[in-house]
Amino acid sequence: MAYTINRSFSGADFADIDSRTRKALGEKGFGVLTEIDVQAVLKKKIDADIPAYRILGACNPHMAHQAMQLEPRVGAMLPCNVIIRQLESGIEVSAIDPVASMSAIENPKLHAVAGEVRDLLASAVAAI
Amino acid sequence: MAYTINRSFSGADFADIDSRTRKALGEKGFGVLTEIDVQAVLKKKIDADIPAYRILGACNPHMAHQAMQLEPRVGAMLPCNVIIRQLESGIEVSAIDPVASMSAIENPKLHAVAGEVRDLLASAVAAI
Repeated sequence: MAYTINRSFSGADFADIDSRTRKALGEKGFGVLTEIDVQAVLKKKIDADIPAYRILGACNPHMAHQAMQLEPRVGAMLPCNVIIRQLESGIEVSAIDPVASMSAIENPKLHAVAGEVRDLLASAVAAI
Repeated sequence: MAYTINRSFSGADFADIDSRTRKALGEKGFGVLTEIDVQAVLKKKIDADIPAYRILGACNPHMAHQAMQLEPRVGAMLPCNVIIRQLESGIEVSAIDPVASMSAIENPKLHAVAGEVRDLLASAVAAI
């Protein structure tokens, strides 16, 4: 099962794609609540070298509130991450597919909300 | 399928459990890379009132690096969240079970690493 919604930008600049990703998320109602510079963290903590890799934690507060009312512990799978990675060929953006990541939660009503969030994330990725 | 590792503390204080949770995670090699005060975010963004609810994003850098080498997009499911919630009866801590959340990823080697991380998180929750 695909668990992310992906889009590649060949020859693109990391900072430019990062900025366009945040703008596209914002236009679909997602605020970026968390941010991890994975490359910097792994270098600092274990002296590992990886290409640029960022994790943005995106949250649509209305959808998150609805999900938490249906499934109080769903915060263990929130926010919805969008990763931005440097590849040899360019930049790849991958948004989590919440339907896939929440498939282990047995709650059909939650799955319906997760489907709406997936559609919003897919439209954000398409708009980058 | 259970997707979290849970522990309840009846009549406990939120700040005390929060502090003990961070200490227990640290002793198992998890740094807290992100933190969301969900109660404050929902109040500010959509004027919703919920009991205290915090999401800590915990990362063991060695395990994360290993997972990313096996499955480059796994960052879409990282870090491992630990939620702390105020209930009427006390405080509940729930750590994500990465085996459950990553079950949609078809990668047996990754599942083995996720199992090791689950064991570490379970031992942290037991040590709170």
